This record gives sequence, C-alpha cells and structure tokens, in this order.
Amino acid sequence: MHDKIKAYIDNNKDRFIDELKDLLRIPSVSADPEFKDDVFEAAEFIKLRLEEAGAENVEVCPTAGYPIVYGEKMVDPAKPTVLVYGHYDVQPADPYELWTSPPFEPVIKDGKIYARGACDDKGQMYMHVKAFEFMMKNGSLPCNVKFMIEGEEEVGSANLGTYIRENKEKLKADVILISDTSMLGVENPSITVGLRGLAYLEVEVTGPNRDLHSGVYGGAVANPINILAKMIASLQDDNGKITIPGFYDDVLAVPAKEQEAMKKIPFDLEEYKNHLDIKAIGGEQEFSVYEKTSVRPTLDVNGIWGGYIGEGAKTVLPSKASAKISMRLVPNQQSDKISKLFEAHFKSIAPDTVKVKVTPHHGGEPVVVPVDLIEYQAASKAYETSFGKTPIPVRSGGSIPIVALFEDVLGLKSIMMGFGLDSDAIHSPNESFGVFNFLKGIETIPLFFENYASMKS
Amino acid sequence: MHDKIKAYIDNNKDRFIDELKDLLRIPSVSADPEFKDDVFEAAEFIKLRLEEAGAENVEVCPTAGYPIVYGEKMVDPAKPTVLVYGHYDVQPADPYELWTSPPFEPVIKDGKIYARGACDDKGQMYMHVKAFEFMMKNGSLPCNVKFMIEGEEEVGSANLGTYIRENKEKLKADVILISDTSMLGVENPSITVGLRGLAYLEVEVTGPNRDLHSGVYGGAVANPINILAKMIASLQDDNGKITIPGFYDDVLAVPAKEQEAMKKIPFDLEEYKNHLDIKAIGGEQEFSVYEKTSVRPTLDVNGIWGGYIGEGAKTVLPSKASAKISMRLVPNQQSDKISKLFEAHFKSIAPDTVKVKVTPHHGGEPVVVPVDLIEYQAASKAYETSFGKTPIPVRSGGSIPIVALFEDVLGLKSIMMGFGLDSDAIHSPNESFGVFNFLKGIETIPLFFENYASMKS
Repeated sequence: MHDKIKAYIDNNKDRFIDELKDLLRIPSVSADPEFKDDVFEAAEFIKLRLEEAGAENVEVCPTAGYPIVYGEKMVDPAKPTVLVYGHYDVQPADPYELWTSPPFEPVIKDGKIYARGACDDKGQMYMHVKAFEFMMKNGSLPCNVKFMIEGEEEVGSANLGTYIRENKEKLKADVILISDTSMLGVENPSITVGLRGLAYLEVEVTGPNRDLHSGVYGGAVANPINILAKMIASLQDDNGKITIPGFYDDVLAVPAKEQEAMKKIPFDLEEYKNHLDIKAIGGEQEFSVYEKTSVRPTLDVNGIWGGYIGEGAKTVLPSKASAKISMRLVPNQQSDKISKLFEAHFKSIAPDTVKVKVTPHHGGEPVVVPVDLIEYQAASKAYETSFGKTPIPVRSGGSIPIVALFEDVLGLKSIMMGFGLDSDAIHSPNESFGVFNFLKGIETIPLFFENYASMKS
Repeated sequence: MHDKIKAYIDNNKDRFIDELKDLLRIPSVSADPEFKDDVFEAAEFIKLRLEEAGAENVEVCPTAGYPIVYGEKMVDPAKPTVLVYGHYDVQPADPYELWTSPPFEPVIKDGKIYARGACDDKGQMYMHVKAFEFMMKNGSLPCNVKFMIEGEEEVGSANLGTYIRENKEKLKADVILISDTSMLGVENPSITVGLRGLAYLEVEVTGPNRDLHSGVYGGAVANPINILAKMIASLQDDNGKITIPGFYDDVLAVPAKEQEAMKKIPFDLEEYKNHLDIKAIGGEQEFSVYEKTSVRPTLDVNGIWGGYIGEGAKTVLPSKASAKISMRLVPNQQSDKISKLFEAHFKSIAPDTVKVKVTPHHGGEPVVVPVDLIEYQAASKAYETSFGKTPIPVRSGGSIPIVALFEDVLGLKSIMMGFGLDSDAIHSPNESFGVFNFLKGIETIPLFFENYASMKS
C-alpha cells in the first residue's frame, strides 16, 4: 500500500495544500467573539471536506459553545474502529505586528506553510481528512473510522466532556487517534506516549487581621510572607525531592523498553542552557533533563504575592501572603489524592502564628500509552515504513486534559501521532507547519490503519 | 515654679484651647497640592503666635517646599540652649466619611479635642509655644530657646536636611526637644528613648530568560519563586534569629537601668493577641514582646511578587521573582553596613541556577537616648513633678529619620517628650488629643527647662 499512498500524494499534493490554505484563511479564533461567524464557517468547511472524502452521517453538532463536527465510515462491524480527534479552532493571532506575513493569508516559504493554525491543529487535523480520502479512493479503508473535530480546544474544550458523555454509544471505538503534538525532528520521528497530570492549588497565609507597621510590630508578630517562604521552602529538600508524605507512593517506574528508547532522544545540554540563559540545571540530580521534565513529578510555585509590591519602599508587615502552587503528576499519581495530601501537609507545617487556607484549582490526570500496546505498535511500524526509522516514544511534560478525559469517559487510549516540530511556533507569531511534515503525516496515517487492522485481526 | 505654671494654665486654658482650635481649622495637608495656601497660612500662624509669645528674629524661612518657621529667645550665652522641633503640617484627612465630626472643625468631646493634627503635631507642638509664653510672661526663661517648626514632616521632611546643613550656626544648641511621640498612658507617663533604624532592600531572582511553560520545563529549570522562598527562609533560623554573618556584631546590650525600667511597662499579652487576631507571638522566644519590637533587630519581607497573580490558574514557570526586605536596626548597628552584609550574604546563598540582583532602598540609623544623660534626667524629673510618677523610658520599634538626622548633622541628642496616646488615632479618621494631655504638656515643659538649666550650671 505504501507505494500507492506515495503516488496519490505526489499526484494530489498541490490540491491538498490549496485546500489546507483555504481552511487557514478562515480566522476561526475561538477565544475572540469577534470571530464567531468564522469559527462556525470553519466547522462547515470540515463537514464539506469530510463528505467529499466519503464520510457518512456527517453533522455539525451544536453544543453550548462552538459545534463539534462528526462524521464516520463504517466498513465492517467486525473491524476495529478508530476515532480521530482534532480541532478546527485556533489561538488568537495577536500581536499581529510580529508576523512577517498576515496570519490568515497563508504563504509557503522555505518549505513551510505560515499561518495561524498551520500546525495547531488545522494542518495536522487535515492530514487525517486527506489520509481518509486516499483510503476511500483506493478502496482500502481497513478499519471503521469516526471523526470528532471540535472548535473549542484553544479555550479549554468546555463542552467536549458533555458531548462525549452524551454520545458514548455513537463514539464507541477501539482507539483514539490524535495529531496535535510534536515530534523530536524529521530525522528523529517520535510518538508522544505520556502526558503529565496536574494538581493546582492556591494557598493563603494570614497573620494579623490587618496590615501593620513593621517598626511597631516587627519582631513580635509573625510576618505571613516570611512564614509562607519557610513553608514553601520546606516542600522540597535540597535535591528538589518533594517532602509531602506519600507524594511518591503511586509513582510507577518507567518500563525497561521505554527506558532504553529514552536514551536515544537527542539532547544538547549546552544549547538548552544557552537558549534559556541559565548557568545550571535544577531539580533532582540523579535524573536527566528529559526525565525531570517527563517521568518525574514536580512542584512549582506559579505565582506569589503579598505586602507592598509598588515602586519604592513601604514598611508594612502584611496581613496576608498568597501563592499558586502546582504539581505535575506522573502515572499513576492521582490529581485529587495529591491535592488532598498537599493540603493536609501544608496545613500541618503551618506554625500557630498564622492561619492557612488552601483552595484547589483545576487538576488533570497523567496518562501513559504503554509502548507494548498493540495500537502503539501499529503506529510505530507505520513510522518505520514512512520515515525508515523506529520512532522514539517520548513523554511530554505538559498536560492535554482531553486525553485523560477520553480515557476516563470513553475508556480509550489515545495514540498521539504528532508531526509538528517545536520550531513551528504554535501559539506564537509566525506559526508554521512543514510541507514535508504535512505530507509525511498523510503518508503515515493509512499505514497505521493498515497495521492496526491486521494486528487486531 | 510649678505652682505658678499651674495657676497660669488655670487662668488661660480656655484661650490656649481656642488658639489651638484656630490652628486646627487650617487644613495644612502637605501631601495634597490643593491645600498649598493653607500650609503657608499655618506657617504664618505659627510665626505670629511665636512673636506674640515673645520670640525674636521670627521668620518664615523658604525652602524648595514648604517653609520652616524659625524663632528664638536668647537670654544668656552662658546658659544652655534648647532647640524645639515640631511640625505644622498634617496628614490627609480622607476618608472623610469615617469622621464623626469634620476633620478641620475641631470639637471637644469627652475631654478630647477632635481634629486632624490635634495630636500630630499641632497640639503637641503648640504646647511648646504656650509653655514658652508662660516662661516669658513669668520672667523665668531659664535657657535660651530656638524654635524650628517645619511643614513637610508628613511628606518625608525632604528639605529639612538642607536647611539644617545650611544653618548649623544658627541652630547651635545643647539639645533638641520634640513632642511628636506618644506615652504609655496618663497613669504611666513615659519618654521615648530609642528608635530603631532601618535597612531596606529589594531583591530580584532571575531564572530562565523568559516565562516558561511549567509542564514543558518544570522539574529541570529552577523556578525563581521556589528559589527565592528558599533563600528568604534561610535568612532566619527556627527561632527567628537572623543568619546573616555579622548581623548581630554591633548590637549593644540594653543598659541595666533601662532593663529595670522596662519591666514596669504594662502589657497585656492576651489583649495584644486578641486585638490582632493571632493565636501566638512569633520571633525570638527568649525575648518579651516589648523587647522584640524595640531592642531587638528584625527581618521582615514587606512585599513579594512573581509569576501569575491574577484570577484562576496559569501554569507558568516564571522568569523572575522579587521581594522587598527590610531590617529594623538597634543601637549600634549601621544601616549601610547591614545593607552590605545582607547583599553579600544574599548573593552568596544563591544557587547557580539563578542570577540575583540586590538594590538598596532608603535606610535610617537607630538612635538611643541614654537614660543617664543629663537631658533625659531633666525631663524625667519634670514628669515626676507634673505627673507625680517617674516616667518609664521606652524604645519605639519604628524609626523617626529626623532624629537620626539631627544627631548626624547637628550632633545633638533629641529628648522625645511625647504626650499623645496610642488611642489618639494619628494618621486615621477621628484623630484626637486629650485636653488633659495638652495642658499637662504645657505644665511639664517649663519644668524641664528649669531642671535642665540648674543641672547644667
């Protein structure tokens, strides 16, 4: 089949790119109500393209926000079903003045398509539509396919949860396929197999019932900022280990196969440090930078404030000090459990000179795709065919809440076949997506379908 | 002489109060340009009253800001000279709606004069004018007197330093007399004998060169907020002792006589805690609340900020974190020296994952009036006569920069005969000054002059 895909791509690539450009011209910015009509227009665009490609029962499903485009092609109930997820909304494009070409007038320069959404996620999502088109035209669709393309990913997917809960039967599948991540490089293809979870809390330490004069009361009345600093400092030991009792209890060891693959991830420490203008790396010294940012949990203060923060000097002994503290979680830690451990510990270390309030914000569960999973193997083999190299399974340090949501509500693992690059500048001015990457995605996806169907049968 | 003063006060007290009320009607708010003419009017008012009382060479001396009223009465070059300092400007009166009577329409209720400036410092300053009047009328001025009444105390005395540097000869004196502090109570007269100094610095801790995503970089890139918290936490041990090397080297022990007197200071710990709504007192456990807030140096974080401090949650690993940190100093610590020790230590404890910037803000030197000083003894005896009780020497935890300025530029100690009470609500709505306190001040001041003249001869 590989030769047929390559030939089909060769014969149709200009049209593929033109179609993507048409989609990129629609400024479907979900965060800005000014673009409301455009967001709806993008949904209609996807509906039409899915229908043209051969999808059935295509509909623009209304939600309390922007709609979800659904479509399917059921070839045989005995065959496995792949649910493709993507999104047609994009990040705001401002600051416009930093773009070298207008964000909604796509241009190709140096082999890349420049436009807002080129990579995230219009370009990557559209690979699936075109791969589907090929499989339909070629009469070779080896699995059932369902598409679920949403329009609110960039604003938190607020209505996706309701949609999937209400459409469990319709969305029944064997695996979810998502192209909304990046890979290490075209020479180093990779597949994202893990995402860290998150527990995010806000703490408030209150000392006296009002701001005091630091001369009159300083020395006798405990200062909530000094206390908060002591409390935060004690949450990690000198090696960056988190001191909350039970914090590491559920952390799973990384499978040996993944440990082995991990070593192949190219990494230039000096370049990393220079890029960030730091002299040294922090955190647990027995782990590599990759491990620290992917398979190890963290504790970061995301914000802190208290007392006088204006110009000049004010001698206040403040009543309150606050901080936002988040912990990245790894399999098999649970956001709620960690939040509770944090809260109990944080309150337990507060001296009796202050009162402490802890408020949980949102959380998210970590996810991991075991590398010996059949779905992962199917994807890995597809890359071997299209790139000529075994992709490296990598874990991302961040969180994609929808992946945990799919796992929780639909009970499905997600295969994250991302073809973007870190240099694609998603969420920033001059977002781009390599034409090579776009076409390579279209080439790899049908191979996954083929492998998956044969491995499942 | 005591009987004569009492008789004079009895015969003239209504007039004294009426004159003070006239002064209080002038809204001489130095912080607000809207009241500019009133501030000048208050200066002219003082000039006239000094002249009426018998002062000579009275002048309203212009400065780059509001003028300083000078006046003198030289009786004999062989006699000691007392330089009286006070100020005729007042704090802003807002919020006006919290006043039960208008701030610039003085009224007497329950034995107190209510008005902005009643205690701070018009009422207390005017006691000196009336005490001077008595001594002149009575033909009993036992010392030379000089008056220096400024109009910018509430905005930082910006031009006082220049004035005293340029008029050293004119201001030559043996001691400075100030009534701009409070006493413990009318049953517990006290004299302020110490003020803490101040070293105030701003620190900035920089990690990566830009804000980062805490998922992508968290765990490997040191978080400047976490680091700043650790650094601040390490500045004090668990008992609140400051860990900066050399910090306590110059701290003088409190003289035995003052130690003894200190024990007489009435203090209700439960009331103190209830008033502030705190369960426990902080700081060095081997010291009393009074000692902690007066004779012991402190380290307080007056402000801290970094990262995301808005509503909700943002997963940022910030580039910078900052704090304003001040240390109250006690005799014989030096502001500059302590600032340098702080800076060197703070930089030395920074890990190599961050860069640290330390910026000194303003400082101030601590002052102490030894209780065996002849000028203090003269004041103490005056209280013994007028109150029938030996005043307790107390140290204030705050700083009055002008007192250190006088000591530095003029080489003079200041005797702080304050007759206000903590309940007078200076700087707040419904400021007041007890009529009893006002008259008791007028009664006590001439006794000081008399004692001082005889003790110096």
